[in-house]
Amino acid sequence: MTLLVFGHKNPDTDSICSAVSLAYLKNKLGQNAKAYALGEVRKEAQYVLDYFKVDSPTVLTSISNICNDDKDLVLEGKPKVVLVDHNEYGQSIDGLADADLVEIVDHHKLGGMATDTPLSMRLMPVGCTCTIITQMYKENNVEIPYEIAGLLMSAILSDTLIFKSPTTTEMDKLAVEELNKIVNVDVEKYAMDMFKAGTSLDGYSVEEIVHMDFKPFDMSGKNVGIGQVFTLDIDAVLNKQDEFLAYINSTDFDILVLAVTDIIKEGSYLIYKGSDKLISDAFNVEASQGVFVEGAVSRKKQLVPFLTEAVKNNL
Amino acid sequence: MTLLVFGHKNPDTDSICSAVSLAYLKNKLGQNAKAYALGEVRKEAQYVLDYFKVDSPTVLTSISNICNDDKDLVLEGKPKVVLVDHNEYGQSIDGLADADLVEIVDHHKLGGMATDTPLSMRLMPVGCTCTIITQMYKENNVEIPYEIAGLLMSAILSDTLIFKSPTTTEMDKLAVEELNKIVNVDVEKYAMDMFKAGTSLDGYSVEEIVHMDFKPFDMSGKNVGIGQVFTLDIDAVLNKQDEFLAYINSTDFDILVLAVTDIIKEGSYLIYKGSDKLISDAFNVEASQGVFVEGAVSRKKQLVPFLTEAVKNNL
Repeated sequence: MTLLVFGHKNPDTDSICSAVSLAYLKNKLGQNAKAYALGEVRKEAQYVLDYFKVDSPTVLTSISNICNDDKDLVLEGKPKVVLVDHNEYGQSIDGLADADLVEIVDHHKLGGMATDTPLSMRLMPVGCTCTIITQMYKENNVEIPYEIAGLLMSAILSDTLIFKSPTTTEMDKLAVEELNKIVNVDVEKYAMDMFKAGTSLDGYSVEEIVHMDFKPFDMSGKNVGIGQVFTLDIDAVLNKQDEFLAYINSTDFDILVLAVTDIIKEGSYLIYKGSDKLISDAFNVEASQGVFVEGAVSRKKQLVPFLTEAVKNNL
Repeated sequence: MTLLVFGHKNPDTDSICSAVSLAYLKNKLGQNAKAYALGEVRKEAQYVLDYFKVDSPTVLTSISNICNDDKDLVLEGKPKVVLVDHNEYGQSIDGLADADLVEIVDHHKLGGMATDTPLSMRLMPVGCTCTIITQMYKENNVEIPYEIAGLLMSAILSDTLIFKSPTTTEMDKLAVEELNKIVNVDVEKYAMDMFKAGTSLDGYSVEEIVHMDFKPFDMSGKNVGIGQVFTLDIDAVLNKQDEFLAYINSTDFDILVLAVTDIIKEGSYLIYKGSDKLISDAFNVEASQGVFVEGAVSRKKQLVPFLTEAVKNNL
């Protein structure tokens, strides 16, 4: 009977890649297994699947509906499921209690699930589920083919933000080193292309980008707005700086700051309605349109307090 | 800092042996680890420790008391603990929430625990935790010394009742095969000696043995008692059959059956107050004192219903 392998709802790159990679391993070990996803594949994972020419997993909506979700699926008794990249009921498929949970592979904290019978479970405090799955290939002496190595490596680079995340371990780095002997790419460049594709602003208008994640504030009586967008598709904004500025200046806000946040460089590019002096004072930089402010990543903890102080001092 | 490794409360052979074996592995891998027990070592595990000349683990009473339990223990911050052979709060040390749970190795069903941070967890649906730990030695290329191999093998033979338990897997059998290349004993004989030591009736009087697990019943107006004792120390009873019979006959019961149940042979030896015909009718045997009844293991499901029926038919 087919093992259904899937990651969490609203799947990220690790949830997609670990499901595909573990299903492949299971098949190599003689078990019939198939990867699924609990939601549409997002841009970043789609870039990875396209790059390595792997089909997107079928989307499952609930345990009671799986035979509609996948017409090819033949069930005998309860469906047998394998969870990757999660171990909490709230993050998993609806109706999980009606399935036979046979295995969990994950790198998150223990989530309080309980079963009636023993199962396989592999949790490790590493940066990515795919690091554990890479280890499982080694333990089982199963050769990792090119496309699976590509998926595993992509997920590790994604979850660890190219090893910049504090969750990164030595084991994640070693896994990428091993996997790239098979994939053979410029890791830094590949990862940046993947992140850019994942945070692409293609198809969004200037106005949509400014308001994507936008909050208004009252600072010393001034009407202030701060929009923030996390992207590595920086050029999509900076190349059209004049258009953004024209729109921002046309708004009713006294002051408006658009922060284009680069999570890899850990800072934000700012385009603003307001004086250069105000922005210089607030963020301790020589301000001009498109200035990069190192370390400014959190709106709540960095952008808002510094700007509030500077507005007060520049009244 | 020292990793505290322990199995469940009221520890069986697997809980003792898996704690000692995993602590040894951790030390070999460069982590400072020490095995403990959540209760006194029972007879069977003591036989194993004595046979392989391994010290009994120190007993821990609660997380808040560990520095009293083990005066040698030096703590910096929260104690770091590793659970073996259990993954449920109710079976674990009191005050576990105040410890830093870093790892779990177990073969039971998932027990609903939750943590604040990621941890290592290894569950496998096999017959014994020590089978998983044997696998971990292999994965980490750590040589298993004689006494650790002995502990691992003993626990597997104990938990699987020499492979007779339905929880036994191929992996348990292979592990024992591998381990006995190091231990080099007659597996069957060693296991029987271990079980005999574990279920020894040494020091108990005839009366104590009869009443160890005793229940009175009313069967068709007759006053019937059934005592049952699970042991492989069969001779301790059968060699003193006359003494047992004298005591049993001296009781006020109309009918009294003492079942000495051999879990390996899966049957019970019966000593009884009552007619041979009654016992012959009840259990479909040619009854005489000390008769072995194959398959009679459960008092509730086998002894009571058959005897009830025979008493009625022999009124």
